[in-house]
Amino acid sequence: MTREITVADLDDLATGAALLGTGGGGDPYIGKLMARGAIERHGSVPLLALDEVPDAFQVVSCGNMGAPTILIEKVPSGEEPELAMRSWEAHTGKRVDAIIPMEAGGVNSMIPLVAAAARRLPVIDADGMGRAFPQLEMETFNVYGVPASPVAIADEHGNTVMLETRSAAFAEWLARGITIRMGGQSSLVEYGMDGATARRVSVPGTMSLAIGIGRVLREARRLRRDPIEALIGFFSGTHYQKARLIGSGKVADIQRSTQNGWAVGTVRIEPFAPGRPPIAIRIQNENLVALQGEQVLAIVPDLICILEADTAEPITTERLRYGQRVNVLAVQVPPIMRTPEALAVFGPAAFGLPHAYRGFD
Amino acid sequence: MTREITVADLDDLATGAALLGTGGGGDPYIGKLMARGAIERHGSVPLLALDEVPDAFQVVSCGNMGAPTILIEKVPSGEEPELAMRSWEAHTGKRVDAIIPMEAGGVNSMIPLVAAAARRLPVIDADGMGRAFPQLEMETFNVYGVPASPVAIADEHGNTVMLETRSAAFAEWLARGITIRMGGQSSLVEYGMDGATARRVSVPGTMSLAIGIGRVLREARRLRRDPIEALIGFFSGTHYQKARLIGSGKVADIQRSTQNGWAVGTVRIEPFAPGRPPIAIRIQNENLVALQGEQVLAIVPDLICILEADTAEPITTERLRYGQRVNVLAVQVPPIMRTPEALAVFGPAAFGLPHAYRGFD
Repeated sequence: MTREITVADLDDLATGAALLGTGGGGDPYIGKLMARGAIERHGSVPLLALDEVPDAFQVVSCGNMGAPTILIEKVPSGEEPELAMRSWEAHTGKRVDAIIPMEAGGVNSMIPLVAAAARRLPVIDADGMGRAFPQLEMETFNVYGVPASPVAIADEHGNTVMLETRSAAFAEWLARGITIRMGGQSSLVEYGMDGATARRVSVPGTMSLAIGIGRVLREARRLRRDPIEALIGFFSGTHYQKARLIGSGKVADIQRSTQNGWAVGTVRIEPFAPGRPPIAIRIQNENLVALQGEQVLAIVPDLICILEADTAEPITTERLRYGQRVNVLAVQVPPIMRTPEALAVFGPAAFGLPHAYRGFD
Repeated sequence: MTREITVADLDDLATGAALLGTGGGGDPYIGKLMARGAIERHGSVPLLALDEVPDAFQVVSCGNMGAPTILIEKVPSGEEPELAMRSWEAHTGKRVDAIIPMEAGGVNSMIPLVAAAARRLPVIDADGMGRAFPQLEMETFNVYGVPASPVAIADEHGNTVMLETRSAAFAEWLARGITIRMGGQSSLVEYGMDGATARRVSVPGTMSLAIGIGRVLREARRLRRDPIEALIGFFSGTHYQKARLIGSGKVADIQRSTQNGWAVGTVRIEPFAPGRPPIAIRIQNENLVALQGEQVLAIVPDLICILEADTAEPITTERLRYGQRVNVLAVQVPPIMRTPEALAVFGPAAFGLPHAYRGFD
């Protein structure tokens, strides 16, 4: 089933992408403005179901790299994603038929729409992260054997860079250095593959999932229903399946610092229920692990989402404040993200965590 | 007249290139080993006179980027220059007919030979700096309108990067960041142009000039002649024309530090002649200006060469030591490097010096 993403979908998409961002991924707000501008100018964007992508389609992945905070200070011209794509096409001699988002979480839910609208291309209803992750090798595309290279990088001055690297990790390392020199934000096109490959290596349905999350929260608010219950019900009908409320309380302590370009820290939440030990959530851009004493409540790659207690609005790491009343929702990622190969690339060990991955109860 | 560069030329080339390096440019020693290996494996390299380059020849410039000290610790595989060239060719769809050195001073006198031998291509007897400079936009190619882009960059792991930038300054900025992430050394291919353009924008004869400098010093040593007189005589027969001994003395003080990746400092030389004020030479990788009190003895882009007093062996900045007995030779650069356009790119102001350029007496 092919549907269209219109301007009317962008608020829901932004809310859902923020939840899938699990605290990181960049606030989708600026991305939403860019996507709205592009769709108003060029028309709505066809959203192509993953299982309907033709075998021979040329697919590329697209998104932004860089510190989310910089996106607000150094607003993109909006032409970077398209420029990166043109540069990728010129380098490879191939023509792109469809764009797949790198990550459906955070601002990168929006960037593919900007490129797709301008080029009147479809966006595939899928992504390579099923959430947000901080590094470009943390993609199911990489897990299941698609080379990241060639990687095209563009900045707002019209400079482009093309990487041909020996591994996705080298691509990340070089692209990060280039992005820093480009002023902290860049647009990337990478992981070129055919449609048959895209169907095999992608997390399906994540763009419509994000829109659905936004819609569920909006409806729950309108109908004065419990948004957490609504979310749990919604996820149970998707291939994410399982979501649980793993804690509720007040932000009692928040430590944050910037280390090697990451937003690193810990947030401590005092449960409303008396006598329960506090919940500590470790952050590296995204929320990585929720601990209660020694007990692991939930751990990466599963989603740990800190939501405002009343509205279930997702709270990004930089917007966490002392005294906020929050619910913590854990969401299980789909099976394609929980294989041993996937966990080797974006499981707890990839973030230096001492805990083994285990699903939450 | 076409001649061949053989293994027998490399010692003279290394000496001459070190002198043209004016303290920087990287010790040609590692480069010499690489060039020797390449020539022994693949045969000698034709050296093509600039005025004999056919109009339609596809020319590219080639050299290494990075901190010279790192070249010694992180020895290149020797395949980087060729890899950068193949990557440039694949990107542009053009085939290279001849290689022109970026800079005849320092290690970059040797790198083009490595690429040329492996590909059995001629090297053009010319370069874009007529000496050594620290940044890739400081090229006569750039001064006279050749775009630096596309720039191909390769490392010893086989990673390649292709830049398409809006200016040579952006290319320098991005290539420098990439080189740092590549571990501090990389090989570049850039400034693609046709033969007619190369004839217009290059400093002619600089590879044979470097070999000639080395030969003159070797001969002077063998015949126990004054090497400074021999050098001055030799330069008078070239388009550099003028060389002068601007000081002789003992290294009395040397301050050096690494700032933003540059070797920055000042060396103070106490003249042997009593009552003469000390000579201060300011360094930013290369020797930039020689001052005696308020008087400018010589200034960039003219060459300021610190030579061992007895042998006239060039001393690189990192090998300067307290107590060394030295001669300071100034060499005028050719007219193509002294135009207002050229001085805007690599004259005193480009290095933040307060002095206007004037030739020495």
